[in-house]
Amino acid sequence: MNAPNRMGHQTIVYRNTPWITATACAAGPREAQGPLGDKFDLVADTPDFGQESYEQAEVALLREACRICLDKADLGEKGVEAMLGGDLLNQIMPSSLAARSLKIPFLGMYGACSTMSEGLLVGGLLVDGGYASPVLCTAGSHYATAERQFRYPLEYGNQRTPASQWTVTGAGVALLSLPDPQVHPLAKLTRACMGRVVDMGVTDANNMGAAMAPAAAATLCAYFDDTGDTPEQFDRVITGDLGYVGSELLLEWSDKMGHPLPRERMMDCGLTIYDPQQDSHAGGSGCGCSAVVLSSFILPKLQSGEWRRVLFMATGALLSPTTSMQGETIPGVAHAVVIEGVR
Amino acid sequence: MNAPNRMGHQTIVYRNTPWITATACAAGPREAQGPLGDKFDLVADTPDFGQESYEQAEVALLREACRICLDKADLGEKGVEAMLGGDLLNQIMPSSLAARSLKIPFLGMYGACSTMSEGLLVGGLLVDGGYASPVLCTAGSHYATAERQFRYPLEYGNQRTPASQWTVTGAGVALLSLPDPQVHPLAKLTRACMGRVVDMGVTDANNMGAAMAPAAAATLCAYFDDTGDTPEQFDRVITGDLGYVGSELLLEWSDKMGHPLPRERMMDCGLTIYDPQQDSHAGGSGCGCSAVVLSSFILPKLQSGEWRRVLFMATGALLSPTTSMQGETIPGVAHAVVIEGVR
Repeated sequence: MNAPNRMGHQTIVYRNTPWITATACAAGPREAQGPLGDKFDLVADTPDFGQESYEQAEVALLREACRICLDKADLGEKGVEAMLGGDLLNQIMPSSLAARSLKIPFLGMYGACSTMSEGLLVGGLLVDGGYASPVLCTAGSHYATAERQFRYPLEYGNQRTPASQWTVTGAGVALLSLPDPQVHPLAKLTRACMGRVVDMGVTDANNMGAAMAPAAAATLCAYFDDTGDTPEQFDRVITGDLGYVGSELLLEWSDKMGHPLPRERMMDCGLTIYDPQQDSHAGGSGCGCSAVVLSSFILPKLQSGEWRRVLFMATGALLSPTTSMQGETIPGVAHAVVIEGVR
Repeated sequence: MNAPNRMGHQTIVYRNTPWITATACAAGPREAQGPLGDKFDLVADTPDFGQESYEQAEVALLREACRICLDKADLGEKGVEAMLGGDLLNQIMPSSLAARSLKIPFLGMYGACSTMSEGLLVGGLLVDGGYASPVLCTAGSHYATAERQFRYPLEYGNQRTPASQWTVTGAGVALLSLPDPQVHPLAKLTRACMGRVVDMGVTDANNMGAAMAPAAAATLCAYFDDTGDTPEQFDRVITGDLGYVGSELLLEWSDKMGHPLPRERMMDCGLTIYDPQQDSHAGGSGCGCSAVVLSSFILPKLQSGEWRRVLFMATGALLSPTTSMQGETIPGVAHAVVIEGVR
């Protein structure tokens, strides 16, 4: 009863190597001032993106990123067989409302900031197994909606702690398809590793990096144990949004767990999207963080051949105001996908 | 570039027919007084199930349903390769916290009350494609936690409207595995249909049936269009929790859309779990509703051979207090799986 496309305890093998054939991202003005700003497909002039609420702005950024991606692939909504995605808001409303506009069959995901790699993992199953192609994997977030929901509305002028991270206002999407000789892909998926929910007892809602680092270490070590791969076989081992605090903790945890990570091969999307001078404290975060960096920075490097193989692991802190107020700690989860160039 | 395991626009074919090899459910005292009460694996004596909060009671019901199911399959947590599931609470905390206890790799789903069929659909991909086996598909809900989050805390003594439904306190789980000649399965999955997000403009948070019925009709009609099947080829076409109001609307909608449904073949889990004398108004609802009825009523009928083939379609209302307060309407979504007996 062994699954044939399985390696070890947590790793999936995509034998048909789903291709990433198109990608797009849309982001807010603060993100556009960062080092990747000139690579975004769409920049909102204001955080409300001309909408009546920040929530509707989050919907619009996600919907427009999807539309741009489909335009790049020369596809209409009817040409897409499934959409997978999620965001940070309760009932993943931005994703659900974007899916309502696009009219594509929709599978809602929730993995907090690990959503982009969860979506790629499940989208990869749909394409690799021949169940649907092409499929659109999506994730987005918004600074103002996340602060209001998880901490305080911005109008309170609450002070930020040094370990706090800045939720990215933005959305990133990727289109997965069965390999097709007539198409030039950006990259391909070859493996994925499903993460466990890990909790080391962090209770500080302003220190997401510390809450996520143990889950990130667990998924990385599971992947290396399952496959026999080493970090040196990747141009970069990329985490979603551990930030300064979580990235250091990941190095410590993985060292303790017998899989030391070479610092020079590590990259964190939360430390890539903003310039340190932008005063984002411990770095960027949010489902949109890794999704925007994947689209604007990682996939172009794989397409150009500068990088040949990366482990892309978005990381999620399963923070709930309700359970936190009831005394619960903050568990984390991380899912990984191996993305390779095709040149 | 056509996907080989695809039929039409929205339907997936599981060529390896993942088996449901075990199931379990746990529910609250009110559910135990209903017509299925003596078929539950575990009944909580009180709605708080001896926990410090209703939220923790929801976690415990889900966790115990998982443990009972694994016991029935003679498996420990380490023998399960993935857990998929969700619930109604923000950040799907009950599912995430149950997954934390069980230490099984976890993919979080959000489809409101459509979660049980969404989980079976994605779990079916994992098993059918040989990516993981066995996998545990889960869903749960709790009356008190859902009322507090979506409407009013019970302590307010708020009056219920005639169209309102009663969120089921309970959890249901099913274990999917690759076919194995040494095992006697309960049933098997043969197809699934991914639903679109459909919104006909309902704004009443006390009328979920009306919000979900158009999405249910859309998925049913898509399935019949994709496959050429007719309702007569199923012993029952089973909806999740449309209740009295939504079930009547589904008959109207599907009639209008060219796929009239014979009333005698229709069944709604929300109209099955409570006795009409229990004063549940328009019926049961919640992710746990269809999950508990699947486990305690539908799968036993398929196992015994009384039924040979059902279309199981859990239905979700994508209700968000935030977007509702901002004037948004309530979209719905429904995913369907075809479950067949193996006798």
